[in-house]
Amino acid sequence: MRPRGERRIIALADGGFDLLEAKTAVGVIRYAIDPVVAVVDQAHAGKRASDVIGVGDLIPVVASVGDALALHPDANTLLLGTAPRGGVLPASWRAQIVQAMRAGLDVINGLHAFLSDDAELAPVAAAAGVTIWDARRVPDAHRVADTRAHALPATVILTVGSDCNVGKMSTALEVDALLRKRERTSVFVPTGQTGIMIAGWGASIDEVISDFTAGAAEDLVMEAAKVAAAADDFILVEGQGSLVHPGYSGVTLSLIHGSAPDALILCHQATRTQIRRYTLPIPSYADLISIHRALTAPVKPAPVIAISLNTHGMPDADARAAVARATAETGLPATDPIRFGPDALVDAVEAFGRARANSR
Amino acid sequence: MRPRGERRIIALADGGFDLLEAKTAVGVIRYAIDPVVAVVDQAHAGKRASDVIGVGDLIPVVASVGDALALHPDANTLLLGTAPRGGVLPASWRAQIVQAMRAGLDVINGLHAFLSDDAELAPVAAAAGVTIWDARRVPDAHRVADTRAHALPATVILTVGSDCNVGKMSTALEVDALLRKRERTSVFVPTGQTGIMIAGWGASIDEVISDFTAGAAEDLVMEAAKVAAAADDFILVEGQGSLVHPGYSGVTLSLIHGSAPDALILCHQATRTQIRRYTLPIPSYADLISIHRALTAPVKPAPVIAISLNTHGMPDADARAAVARATAETGLPATDPIRFGPDALVDAVEAFGRARANSR
Repeated sequence: MRPRGERRIIALADGGFDLLEAKTAVGVIRYAIDPVVAVVDQAHAGKRASDVIGVGDLIPVVASVGDALALHPDANTLLLGTAPRGGVLPASWRAQIVQAMRAGLDVINGLHAFLSDDAELAPVAAAAGVTIWDARRVPDAHRVADTRAHALPATVILTVGSDCNVGKMSTALEVDALLRKRERTSVFVPTGQTGIMIAGWGASIDEVISDFTAGAAEDLVMEAAKVAAAADDFILVEGQGSLVHPGYSGVTLSLIHGSAPDALILCHQATRTQIRRYTLPIPSYADLISIHRALTAPVKPAPVIAISLNTHGMPDADARAAVARATAETGLPATDPIRFGPDALVDAVEAFGRARANSR
Repeated sequence: MRPRGERRIIALADGGFDLLEAKTAVGVIRYAIDPVVAVVDQAHAGKRASDVIGVGDLIPVVASVGDALALHPDANTLLLGTAPRGGVLPASWRAQIVQAMRAGLDVINGLHAFLSDDAELAPVAAAAGVTIWDARRVPDAHRVADTRAHALPATVILTVGSDCNVGKMSTALEVDALLRKRERTSVFVPTGQTGIMIAGWGASIDEVISDFTAGAAEDLVMEAAKVAAAADDFILVEGQGSLVHPGYSGVTLSLIHGSAPDALILCHQATRTQIRRYTLPIPSYADLISIHRALTAPVKPAPVIAISLNTHGMPDADARAAVARATAETGLPATDPIRFGPDALVDAVEAFGRARANSR
C-alpha cells in the first residue's frame, strides 16, 4: 500500500454522500494529509464536494469509479467512505471496487465487512498486485480492562455525545490540533475507522468483542501516554456512540470506563431532537450531563467541562443562539469548533489541566 | 454429543473450585438436569463438592480426570467449569482434556478459547469420535439493536448487579422456576455460557462484537417472546457484569438497552464492598438504583423492583440482618433466593406485572 503522504484518493460514497452518511469521506477530506481527488456518488454527480457537505472546495463528485479514473488517471487509492448501518458491503459497489483494483488502486475499507477476507475481492486484489487495508480489523488482544489508565500524568479528555455522528471525532481532532498549535504536547487517540485512516494508527473499538472493548480502549490510551507522558500533556480520545443510543451505548460505556478520562467534552448536533433512526428523544443537556456523571463517578469521576455543538446548516444567528443556549443551560463554555473555531474548548481543556495539576 | 438428559458429567475445575471461580460448575451442579458425577480439583481432592461450595452433597472432588474416570467409568461428558479471567485455556488442562476425549467423553467448553478451533485438541476429538461444544461461540448475526423488544406483551425482567458473580443468573433461574411452579408462563433467557449449558439455548453476549451486543440481546428476548407471548407471561433475562465494573460495564449496558426490560432485580453479594479484582468500592444501594435509573430512563424506563442478596457463608442472623438492611435502605422487597427462597422476589415480579397490565 502506498504510504501516507503519497496517496491520491477516490472516495466511493455512492448513495450516501451527505454529512450524516459519509462520515468517513468527510473526515478524510477535512483532516487527512492525502488529497481526495474525486468523490463517487450518482445522486450528486456534477457537483463539487463543497456543494454537498460544505468542505472539499475543488473536489468533483462523479457518477462512477470509471468517471473518476478518467478525470484523475493518477489516483492510486480507493476509499470506501460510507459506513452503512451494520457495515455490510452494498452489492452494487462490488463491480466498482473490482474495476478500481484492476486499475491498480489500493483499497482502504472502513466497513465491518473485511474485503481482504472476501472470496470475490481478495483474489482480484492479489492478481492486480494491490493492497486492501481493512481499517476496522482489530488486534486479537483479548484483555479485560484493569484500570491501568486511571492515574496517568497527562490529562485525558474524551469526547462524548448525545447521539452518533454529532462531531465527537472532529471535536477531538480540532482540540488536539489547536493544543499542538499552542505548543502543548497532545495526542489524538483514534477509536473508529475514520480516525484511524486520518491518524494512521488506532483501533476500531466497536469491532472488538464486548468483554474486551474497555481493554482495547485502555490499550490505546496507554499507547498515547508514551508520547503524552508529562503532567502538562494532553490525550484527546475520539468518542463513539452515546450512552443514550439503544444500539451502541455499550461501546460508549466500554470506551468511557476503559479510556478513563479525567474530563469530558459533550458533543451535540444543535438541530437534532431524536436519536437518529430511532424515535427516542435526546435528553436535555442537564440530563445528559447527569447521566455521564452517574456512570463515571463510581469508576473514575470525569466532569463534562465544555459543550461542542455541530451547527452545520444553521443560519449564523441561529448557530450563535444555540451556542448561547448551551452555555445558559449548563454554565459551561460552548462553541461550534468548525464554524467558530475550537478556542473556547481548548481554553476549557487547558484550564482543567492546570486545575488538575494544582490539585495533585 | 449426547443429548441433555443423557449426560454424566465430570467437571474440570482444577485450581479454581470455589464459589467465586467455578461459577459454571456450581450453576450446572445446581440447575442442570444432567448429574455431575465428579469434580476435578487437586486442591480439594478427597472432599465432597458440598464441603467446598455448599451444593452437590454426594459429588466427590478428585485430583485428576484419571481418578474421576476410575471412580465413574460411565461418565460421558467433560465440562470445563471454570471461567478464568480472559477465558484462556490453562496449559495444565490440555493433557487431561486429551485423556478424557480419548476415553470417549464429549467436551462442553465455557471458555473464550474455542477448543473446536484448537490445533491440538480438535484432531484428538475427531480421532476419538467425540464432540466439542464451545458454548461461548456466538451466531454470526451482525445486527444493531432497533428497539424491537420495547413493547412486548410479556413482562421482561432483567437481573442486574453490583459486580460480577453476585447471583444474577441464579436469581433469574430461581424466579423463573417459581413463576412456573405458580403456573405462570415464564422463559429464562440465558446470556452467558453457564446459563446456556443449563437451558440448552441462548448466546454468550460478552463474546459478541460490541456494535452488535445489544442486537444479540434483543434477538434472545424476541426468541423468548415466541413462548412467553401473552400479557401475563414473563421473560427472565440473565444479567451480565455490572454498570460499575471497569472491564465489563459495556456488556451490561448493551444487555440493558438491547433486552429492554420492564423492570430490574438488583443483585448483590452482601459481604462484598469492592469490585472483585479491583480496588473500586461498590456504591450504595441508593446509588446503584439511581445509576440504573439514569441509564434506563432515556431509552426505556425500568425501575429496580427488588433486591436479591447472595449471603453465602454468612451466619443466618447476619444474612437476615443484611436482607432487612437492604429493604430499609431501599424500601424494596429483598431476600436471598437460595437461602430463604425466591418468594419475595416472585411476589414483587407478579405485582409489577399486574400493575403494568392495568396501566396499558
